[in-house]
Amino acid sequence: MNPQPAPDTRTDYRLGRESRHLTRSVMRELLKKASAPGVISLAGGLPDTRLLPADQYRECLDAVLTRDGGAALQYRPMHEPLREWIASMMQARGVRCDAGQVFITNGNQQGLSILSRLFLDPDEAAVTEAITFTGIQQATAGRGARMLLAPTDLATGVDVDALETLFAEHQPRLAVLVPDFHNPLGVSISADKRQRIAAIAARYQVPVIEDDPYSALRFSGRPTPPIKAYDEAGWVFYLGSFSKMLAPGLRMGWMIVPDDLLPRVTALRESLDLETSTLTQRAVAEFVARGSLEPHLERLNASNRARCAAMLDALDKHFGGWATWTQPEGGLFVWVTLPAGIDTTAQLADVIDRLGVAYVPGGAFAVDGRSHRNTLRLNFSAVAPDDIRKGIARLASHFRPLAG
Amino acid sequence: MNPQPAPDTRTDYRLGRESRHLTRSVMRELLKKASAPGVISLAGGLPDTRLLPADQYRECLDAVLTRDGGAALQYRPMHEPLREWIASMMQARGVRCDAGQVFITNGNQQGLSILSRLFLDPDEAAVTEAITFTGIQQATAGRGARMLLAPTDLATGVDVDALETLFAEHQPRLAVLVPDFHNPLGVSISADKRQRIAAIAARYQVPVIEDDPYSALRFSGRPTPPIKAYDEAGWVFYLGSFSKMLAPGLRMGWMIVPDDLLPRVTALRESLDLETSTLTQRAVAEFVARGSLEPHLERLNASNRARCAAMLDALDKHFGGWATWTQPEGGLFVWVTLPAGIDTTAQLADVIDRLGVAYVPGGAFAVDGRSHRNTLRLNFSAVAPDDIRKGIARLASHFRPLAG
Repeated sequence: MNPQPAPDTRTDYRLGRESRHLTRSVMRELLKKASAPGVISLAGGLPDTRLLPADQYRECLDAVLTRDGGAALQYRPMHEPLREWIASMMQARGVRCDAGQVFITNGNQQGLSILSRLFLDPDEAAVTEAITFTGIQQATAGRGARMLLAPTDLATGVDVDALETLFAEHQPRLAVLVPDFHNPLGVSISADKRQRIAAIAARYQVPVIEDDPYSALRFSGRPTPPIKAYDEAGWVFYLGSFSKMLAPGLRMGWMIVPDDLLPRVTALRESLDLETSTLTQRAVAEFVARGSLEPHLERLNASNRARCAAMLDALDKHFGGWATWTQPEGGLFVWVTLPAGIDTTAQLADVIDRLGVAYVPGGAFAVDGRSHRNTLRLNFSAVAPDDIRKGIARLASHFRPLAG
Repeated sequence: MNPQPAPDTRTDYRLGRESRHLTRSVMRELLKKASAPGVISLAGGLPDTRLLPADQYRECLDAVLTRDGGAALQYRPMHEPLREWIASMMQARGVRCDAGQVFITNGNQQGLSILSRLFLDPDEAAVTEAITFTGIQQATAGRGARMLLAPTDLATGVDVDALETLFAEHQPRLAVLVPDFHNPLGVSISADKRQRIAAIAARYQVPVIEDDPYSALRFSGRPTPPIKAYDEAGWVFYLGSFSKMLAPGLRMGWMIVPDDLLPRVTALRESLDLETSTLTQRAVAEFVARGSLEPHLERLNASNRARCAAMLDALDKHFGGWATWTQPEGGLFVWVTLPAGIDTTAQLADVIDRLGVAYVPGGAFAVDGRSHRNTLRLNFSAVAPDDIRKGIARLASHFRPLAG
């Protein structure tokens, strides 16, 4: 049997319901176009590749495989030293938990997927912010949920009054919030709001997923305890990730899960993909045991701080007086609101082609699929300050004339 | 806020439908008990840890991180050299496909999960063999499917007449089969049956998932092309894995997906956990590019051949005349059928405690949850020949008197 060209199958597959709701992430398709040579891409959602700790992580892999041999390549239960380190870190942030409640995942998207399947059936109600990360949309709207949307204050985070009204009137099965340096808004939820969120989760018995990939990326201001730190009754589900604070290519994160749900979470996880690579778990445990995480985060956040400052300065200079934007204390993103009437989605191809600058149109994060057309998400972490300044100046030169 | 003990949450969570169907895999719970010191465990489903290529893989990781730096730790599209190598290997096995149709997964359980969500809704009909791997049960029965079961001939594989009747009468949304060295039966599907399976998949328009983690583990007999090699019309979905042929701890496999389904498969995958670690993809690509896979498989299969021979000899000696068993040409498992009336599930605790031998009761693989109580799955790959001989002798000493 010799290789021949693959048959051209235009077959009428009957698709399951779940796959009918899902569409490919606009943002991920965009990332491809934005990476053309010469384009200043403010469209990314990534740490700077040159700042990822390749040498230190290589040394950790080397040490683990030399020490553990084949055991580091075998099926294995979760790696206890890693769970213990995560539990200590969460305790230091005010969360009451023990290592047995730390459930290792392949990153927060998997945590969202597991918890969505644990609590949410299609056609039932789920709450997200009106503007939110597309992965959160996939784990809710993408599973056929009836979406209820809460607005977000661009200084203090999600509108908790609106959230409480939705909880009280609709008894949703799930809510998903991003506590620190929201993607795409760049805003963090204030401490008093966090306390209220934990309280209303318990009062209305709504599982609130706290999707927190960014909190370690703080470069100014004071840390706020996670919503989970205010959770007395077990209705807040914390998701943490090594993707942004160490490296995306590890594909590793964790959840804090109450004891009585662990067997079900484990069964769900096993049905999805069994378990997380023990080699990755051991190498990350080695990385943190060596004390390599703190200096890495210092270097990363120093870079992000300088780049964010460059972006905010350039926004002041070129967008001051006719647009508004958020003031992030960490993370990767600034959210810009242009005058009503400007459609950033319609302008994108032109801006990339003529000006060589890419951004993500804010409308891509609108769960309703149509609002917020006059907004942009700008990434500062992956671009050098000079390019940030150039990029912002070019964006202003394009959009200023459209502001009328 | 000081760390305190975690609150005792006995909270009445309302669970989603998907998590209500799933139960923890009996087999994985068993693995814990079977790993007590001194127990000869024939219950495993693993390659021998000492045969995993830790040194060579360490060198590959080292080379990749030295060469690619942070790019090997970043978010990335699938690694093209790996997809190309997989496509060549599949072509050499008679499958018409190109690199663009190779979709990298975190192993075959993830492939099963994705394809189940692509085609199967709860309450709809799915076909599996009456005895099959628990992960296949989780991706079908575990999602609430109405199960239709085909019997399996212990010499030539699944009963294709029965399969065709089920396809014709019930129009199932999905069927899942294991082509080579079936888990737990150890049997392979004959070439003529494979051809018929591809034909009836197309005739009745039933997506047939070919779950093939074991074919590279052949230690005798001649290879048979995958079912996918006979597929003209795009109704066979091939799943391959590096778990058994390289190392389980990598958590990496692949699917062959028709072009027109790739966008939907990609969207589903992104919603589950975004993508597979680019570092793992690059390190495996390096491993195969260095020509390290063939010698590894030769060493692994030589060991498995000797151990399987030791097991079959011991079965002849101790079980000959009063039990029957399969004759695997590869893989990890032998399936033993004892006289009717012996309940291997009921005997297990006693056999582990008194005789220090563990096995998996065949009933754990019965999709109906009650048949095949007089069967055992025995693993030969992870145990030294002397222990295999001892273990089989002890099992016979226990079960022979029960045979009446």
